[in-house]
Amino acid sequence: MVNNSIAKKNNKTKEAIDNSVKYLINQHGIDNLTIKQICEHAEVSRTNFYYYYKNKDEAVLERFNYIDEYFATIVKPNLTSSNLSENLVLYANYYMKFILKFNVDYCKQIYICQIKYSNSKITSYERPVYKILIDLFDRFKSSNENLKNENSCYLADSFLTIIRGITFNWLICNGNFNLELTGEKLIKIFLNGLL
Amino acid sequence: MVNNSIAKKNNKTKEAIDNSVKYLINQHGIDNLTIKQICEHAEVSRTNFYYYYKNKDEAVLERFNYIDEYFATIVKPNLTSSNLSENLVLYANYYMKFILKFNVDYCKQIYICQIKYSNSKITSYERPVYKILIDLFDRFKSSNENLKNENSCYLADSFLTIIRGITFNWLICNGNFNLELTGEKLIKIFLNGLL
Repeated sequence: MVNNSIAKKNNKTKEAIDNSVKYLINQHGIDNLTIKQICEHAEVSRTNFYYYYKNKDEAVLERFNYIDEYFATIVKPNLTSSNLSENLVLYANYYMKFILKFNVDYCKQIYICQIKYSNSKITSYERPVYKILIDLFDRFKSSNENLKNENSCYLADSFLTIIRGITFNWLICNGNFNLELTGEKLIKIFLNGLL
Repeated sequence: MVNNSIAKKNNKTKEAIDNSVKYLINQHGIDNLTIKQICEHAEVSRTNFYYYYKNKDEAVLERFNYIDEYFATIVKPNLTSSNLSENLVLYANYYMKFILKFNVDYCKQIYICQIKYSNSKITSYERPVYKILIDLFDRFKSSNENLKNENSCYLADSFLTIIRGITFNWLICNGNFNLELTGEKLIKIFLNGLL
């Protein structure tokens, strides 16, 4: 009982921090964001902040994990095609759409944080961004000659590698091409070779 | 004449800075590197340093541009196969080999700097990493039904996107898989779809 209410309080504190990070990034951008601002806005102490995050960048990275929430709640229910390729193209399109919700500088920060604070959480197959792909490949691969002997985790990883490559390229091009269109074309070439 | 000797002196200064960056990174790692150290080791003034680079990261990024030197002098002369696919697989393998010359943390810094200081120089088709690919596609695409109507710059860009995606994935996995083997398998899937 005591543990439960501590956990509940902890969740609320973390939620307050995360919401403040989101709000403040949208208001002032990442570079101008300080831990002091976050704590003031979230009405939490610095000690509380450091209980959850090592630094500002880690808190920013956590924001990106909302991509998992988005994939679990919005994307997954829509991947209903009876065709694997169609589902994968749609998945990639949802990923690009998520990226485009933010501005280029914000996305750069996210990708930088992913490299800087790379840990097993980011590349865990338990994350919905991976899990949804793994389930898709599991569901369809037996009916595809090229896939049936492949590991679904490997396939999910490969597919995300391509999506991340496209996004990385878009970032170093400062967002100067149409991410959705260029992305879709490249994804289709890859699927043409995979399936 | 005067201009020539100024240019020569400038080149020597830049060379000294670049060599010191290389030496000091190998000795102490990037995170511990300071501009003060670089200037002392290169025997140049801070003013001279700032004439060439905005900050430490930009100087580090410049080091990575040696990949162009490597591609122009080592890689290009070896892409002599009469088969496009073979040349592209070899190109990708040389890229991975170059990455593996450095340690994972150094490569992370390079990829972070590429995002952070993304500019038109990094994605210029004049860079040997692009130019060599463009020339390859130009040479072979007329004999391939799928490629003959594609722009060689687009094809080069796409191919580098895949290579960069593989490298990015390797970095966020903290180098915990065989970059060359995994890379080659993915490259072959992509080429299977492209060619």
